[in-house]
Amino acid sequence: MLVIYGSHRNNGNSEQLAKHMIKEMKTEEIFLRDLTIHPILDQRHDEEGFKHRGDDYYGVVERLLQHDEVILVTPLYWYGMSGRMKNFVDRWSESLRDGKIEFRESMNRKKFYVVVVGGDDPNQKALPLIMQFRHIVEFFGAKLEDYIIGEANSPGHILEDERAMKRAEILNRKWRNI
Amino acid sequence: MLVIYGSHRNNGNSEQLAKHMIKEMKTEEIFLRDLTIHPILDQRHDEEGFKHRGDDYYGVVERLLQHDEVILVTPLYWYGMSGRMKNFVDRWSESLRDGKIEFRESMNRKKFYVVVVGGDDPNQKALPLIMQFRHIVEFFGAKLEDYIIGEANSPGHILEDERAMKRAEILNRKWRNI
Amino acid sequence: MLVIYGSHRNNGNSEQLAKHMIKEMKTEEIFLRDLTIHPILDQRHDEEGFKHRGDDYYGVVERLLQHDEVILVTPLYWYGMSGRMKNFVDRWSESLRDGKIEFRESMNRKKFYVVVVGGDDPNQKALPLIMQFRHIVEFFGAKLEDYIIGEANSPGHILEDERAMKRAEILNRKWRNI
Amino acid sequence: MLVIYGSHRNNGNSEQLAKHMIKEMKTEEIFLRDLTIHPILDQRHDEEGFKHRGDDYYGVVERLLQHDEVILVTPLYWYGMSGRMKNFVDRWSESLRDGKIEFRESMNRKKFYVVVVGGDDPNQKALPLIMQFRHIVEFFGAKLEDYIIGEANSPGHILEDERAMKRAEILNRKWRNI
Repeated sequence: MLVIYGSHRNNGNSEQLAKHMIKEMKTEEIFLRDLTIHPILDQRHDEEGFKHRGDDYYGVVERLLQHDEVILVTPLYWYGMSGRMKNFVDRWSESLRDGKIEFRESMNRKKFYVVVVGGDDPNQKALPLIMQFRHIVEFFGAKLEDYIIGEANSPGHILEDERAMKRAEILNRKWRNI
Repeated sequence: MLVIYGSHRNNGNSEQLAKHMIKEMKTEEIFLRDLTIHPILDQRHDEEGFKHRGDDYYGVVERLLQHDEVILVTPLYWYGMSGRMKNFVDRWSESLRDGKIEFRESMNRKKFYVVVVGGDDPNQKALPLIMQFRHIVEFFGAKLEDYIIGEANSPGHILEDERAMKRAEILNRKWRNI
Repeated sequence: MLVIYGSHRNNGNSEQLAKHMIKEMKTEEIFLRDLTIHPILDQRHDEEGFKHRGDDYYGVVERLLQHDEVILVTPLYWYGMSGRMKNFVDRWSESLRDGKIEFRESMNRKKFYVVVVGGDDPNQKALPLIMQFRHIVEFFGAKLEDYIIGEANSPGHILEDERAMKRAEILNRKWRNI
Repeated sequence: MLVIYGSHRNNGNSEQLAKHMIKEMKTEEIFLRDLTIHPILDQRHDEEGFKHRGDDYYGVVERLLQHDEVILVTPLYWYGMSGRMKNFVDRWSESLRDGKIEFRESMNRKKFYVVVVGGDDPNQKALPLIMQFRHIVEFFGAKLEDYIIGEANSPGHILEDERAMKRAEILNRKWRNI
């Protein structure tokens, strides 16, 4: 299981909720904030395709290809995923066009999970983002297995969102078969 | 009227649709691809607030404050706005906290329009993005006045989306009172 | 092409918009208001299945099976389809369970269109209904080909919604190949 | 607190989930299946307004006006609320026009909760319905306080949806201040 964090702050609310979800599990974690991933250059229609950008994107994709289950973790910024996470997702267009890797086939076989934490009524206002993630994974013919929406307005506040924490625990026990 | 373009390519499909919409009108245009706007650093919870980033963001906000009507133009990337546009929107958190400008009050009084062009059934799969924009402008108590979704799969293809082009013309005539 | 009207009033706004869409075309029309279609009794889990209700539902289904293209026309009531239309759709559960007709296979092959007219910002507030119709037709593996949302607040007002009327004309010309 | 059930079956899944949510609380319960509530006749534009239908609708509205908190409970039928529930909601148009009761003002002051149980991935496919309910209560200027989506495919199955049951318990303890 691979966990990809799109948050800016170390140990922020979305990260804490995700950590609770994968407690005592063996996972690989990638923190996008520690990496350089450039915004996509739209070269979909260029004859020669996308130019190699020489950043950390390619390494993350290599790891992505090794996992069957992927958790995408992001704070809710303006009712969407973080720019960091979006930059990463946008670059998937590059991997789709790149003939060397079986990106589409690999993504198709994965199970995706989404964790979102926001401060302004996220259980209602993050629903368009959940739908967006659904469209994203369905593009590959994959399934958005599940999602957790948490509410938090200040650092650490997520621990008081009993509903989100419980949901994380339930998923955790299911994954660990306990 | 201010038009803010979030596309990467010069004269791309979303840009062409927006140009059709503002034909023969006096507007100010800002192309985010010509500017440097860094992703937000989440310093909402830092005591001293957001640090000045020294990039082009502040200039765009100054222009934004001068207009009552704003058109946000973006290609549909992975069923969301472009990273460029998202980076710009994310930085609004910085202006909200900045006591020197009346950002919230100014945004509250504006009318917002959205133009989105995508290739994979955007009239259905861009709906979550429209809802996201709605949440964004409603945060300020403003109204998403209208939106146009266009469909295009290759450069210039938008001109064949008669529905979107007509809708652009109708709005254009309404704005020009003709 | 089969057009099913879920409105209450004769020649109401949604009906007028749909008529504009099928102008000079050969279609079959069904007005649910002229028929008796009872709400579903939830007997999905009853051993003997659904009881025959003796109402007009079965006749409509017979007609439905004869067409490859179906337009569902409904006013927007409380941001959803009319109760009449919903009662009709709900009864599809009965046809699904009924082994005598190949309901699911027939529906899978159809192209569906939706026409919705409402008074309170329907281009934004009818989007959940469009998404619901999408889920409905995707249940059968079919496709929501297109939809038109019209805005009207009083009888006949739809004729002034230039955008919706144009969209209807564009579809009409496409269907008639002119 | 008033609980309005829109399900057909006695003790069905949505009912069981709602009962869990209001356990050991003093509430008033209304089962729409025991009442006669006709579909609305669209007489919004008739001079004399809506005719009195002589059914049970008016009694339910009287009870509705007595409560500050209302839970709307419905099975998910074709990704929407049940026809019974929709018929009831549609009739609100009648109360809005009726000058004798302060329907709008009363609704404006209420807190609304929604409980939905469905069988086909409801945590994703019931989201448009949640958005519809949001539009409905926001029409009155009221707030959709919270919602619970449960998953169940056969009678009693909801008890195994640990996530929904936990969420119900959390709300229950919050309401009971324990």
